[in-house]
Amino acid sequence: MTYSRPNVQRLAAYVPGEQPNGGDVIKLNTNENPYPPCDAVMAAIASVSPQQLRRYPAPAAQAFREAAARLHGVEPSQIIATNGGDELLRLVLTAFCPVGAGGSVAVAEPSYSLYPVLADIHGTSVTRVELGDAFDLPDDFADRALAADCRVILLVNPHAPSGRLEPLDKLEAIGRRVVGRAVLVVDEAYVDFAQRDALPLLDPSRGLDNVLLLRTLSKGYSLAGLRFGYGIGHADLIATLDKVRDSYNTDALAQAAAVAAVTHRDEAARTWSAVRDQRARLTDELTARGWSVLPSEANFVLTTPGAARGVANADLVRGIYESLKGRGILVRYFDQDRLRDKLRITVGSPGENDALLAALDEIERSR
Amino acid sequence: MTYSRPNVQRLAAYVPGEQPNGGDVIKLNTNENPYPPCDAVMAAIASVSPQQLRRYPAPAAQAFREAAARLHGVEPSQIIATNGGDELLRLVLTAFCPVGAGGSVAVAEPSYSLYPVLADIHGTSVTRVELGDAFDLPDDFADRALAADCRVILLVNPHAPSGRLEPLDKLEAIGRRVVGRAVLVVDEAYVDFAQRDALPLLDPSRGLDNVLLLRTLSKGYSLAGLRFGYGIGHADLIATLDKVRDSYNTDALAQAAAVAAVTHRDEAARTWSAVRDQRARLTDELTARGWSVLPSEANFVLTTPGAARGVANADLVRGIYESLKGRGILVRYFDQDRLRDKLRITVGSPGENDALLAALDEIERSR
Repeated sequence: MTYSRPNVQRLAAYVPGEQPNGGDVIKLNTNENPYPPCDAVMAAIASVSPQQLRRYPAPAAQAFREAAARLHGVEPSQIIATNGGDELLRLVLTAFCPVGAGGSVAVAEPSYSLYPVLADIHGTSVTRVELGDAFDLPDDFADRALAADCRVILLVNPHAPSGRLEPLDKLEAIGRRVVGRAVLVVDEAYVDFAQRDALPLLDPSRGLDNVLLLRTLSKGYSLAGLRFGYGIGHADLIATLDKVRDSYNTDALAQAAAVAAVTHRDEAARTWSAVRDQRARLTDELTARGWSVLPSEANFVLTTPGAARGVANADLVRGIYESLKGRGILVRYFDQDRLRDKLRITVGSPGENDALLAALDEIERSR
Repeated sequence: MTYSRPNVQRLAAYVPGEQPNGGDVIKLNTNENPYPPCDAVMAAIASVSPQQLRRYPAPAAQAFREAAARLHGVEPSQIIATNGGDELLRLVLTAFCPVGAGGSVAVAEPSYSLYPVLADIHGTSVTRVELGDAFDLPDDFADRALAADCRVILLVNPHAPSGRLEPLDKLEAIGRRVVGRAVLVVDEAYVDFAQRDALPLLDPSRGLDNVLLLRTLSKGYSLAGLRFGYGIGHADLIATLDKVRDSYNTDALAQAAAVAAVTHRDEAARTWSAVRDQRARLTDELTARGWSVLPSEANFVLTTPGAARGVANADLVRGIYESLKGRGILVRYFDQDRLRDKLRITVGSPGENDALLAALDEIERSR
């Protein structure tokens, strides 16, 4: 007997990257920061008392809202704290997207594969707009979203899995085109590793009451294990999201750690700089091996093995993926259009990247 | 400009009990356990390393599922871990309840006020079945749920806010009546303080593939600040819920603490015993003051001030509520039918209960 809703019965669940239990694996598959969170974060966690755990946490994570507002130069009413960035995505659909016919979600294709899964769970349709050759947004993106009566647009920038950073004026044009009709979510999960963010779009002078930025502490702040994300946007958008979140959606430990993390942003920023250096190195080294690498502003690179020799193909790439895995190095392979001849590799620490490159050379020699 | 769905625009958000920031308040309003979590829980939190926080947590909280399965004598596939019990309630609606016309949720009235809010957010209608004089479930509860085509029944047992524990055979009869048609959630948020739980209903011999038990670490395990709950039910129900939860819905710290908590259940059980003793004392003391107190199997009592003298009324009770608050003691007042002449008082520590009773006597003298 099944009791589930029809859309849930049909649902193909999201498949996250592998999370092995063992500690010996070099994990370059789920875009974690290779450096640990700063001492202040660990101290903040240790400072949470048994009495604080006994009581309900601050329901709206007010201390975090204030800390994040200070950091970004906005009001606390423009911040919502969520159980990971994924919760914010879900809340956006819950708050803004009608269920059933009409009012779908627009996403770029390819993009973060969780987006369509969340839409399926919510019971809304998905409008997929194919990206250009450089994984760039087509000029008619907003028009196509409006033509499908989309109420929500989900764009990850820097783009995953390519790492491409769209110009701000392109995002602004999309937001402006859909103002009054749809909410534009700029998913900035990877923005800490990029040269700029989309915060200027929130300047009141721009009149974009429909733009919501998604941030997460998972990557930039090395806190994937903590599940803490947040949204920045117009106070009305935030108030609506607040109505649909679980009453106590973030816990006392995560709130304490998150406040410490954004308050000590400078320490995290040193890791961002190190990751950027290693990203440049990895790009150079892979290019030198005849692989093509897309310019990335994230903490990963999307690379096509054998591109320079014109031998890139799915079998070759799957073989490399498997060989790396056999050597205890996990990278990400996506069995989907436009990505079958590519690997997405998280930028690791210098030592992890050394090991990756050595393994690639070994695999090449053994062919 | 509003971008929200019509049901979200109309939504009256859930109002949780007050969570004051100051530490001097005696908080008897949101049913926290008066005793702190055990040392093993604090040690488990302290043992989570920066490297563990850097990485994504175990997506399905497998270690917790195994620990909880051992505790309850079920399979790990019969357990789902959630970000508080509230997340499990939301997942149940998402998984089993169609949106729009048809397929509503049945709840008892009065009951946990979050239930109808979650239904409103989900966009499904609510069938409210009035409880009997003793806050007992009417015999035709299941029939009325079926008549309204309810796909989900949410029953808190022990009942909130009365503390009443329904006989197991009554719950079984409801589950059996709706088998194949609706999921019966027995919300056992307070069951740790009761004389029995509904686990026997999950015995395969009973054939109830539609019963889901909700548990939380918030009350019994003194971990309201942690946000950790779980469901126990047929593996097919759990698998469906797993499809609709956020990919990493519980974090590494909470998972570690939760495993320690259920593994050291005996230590928590000592607090349950102490709370039961204080519940009996509070019941006696309030009764001696001419208040009526419903028999409670939870960690709170629902009491009617002045009942013995026939003077119970909303003004009197609100006055007592306000006077207690003025003295730094928070209890819960519900401005809704059948509850306006009552207070729900969480059972505190002996010292907290002393302070409560002394304050009540002082208020009585000053009248």
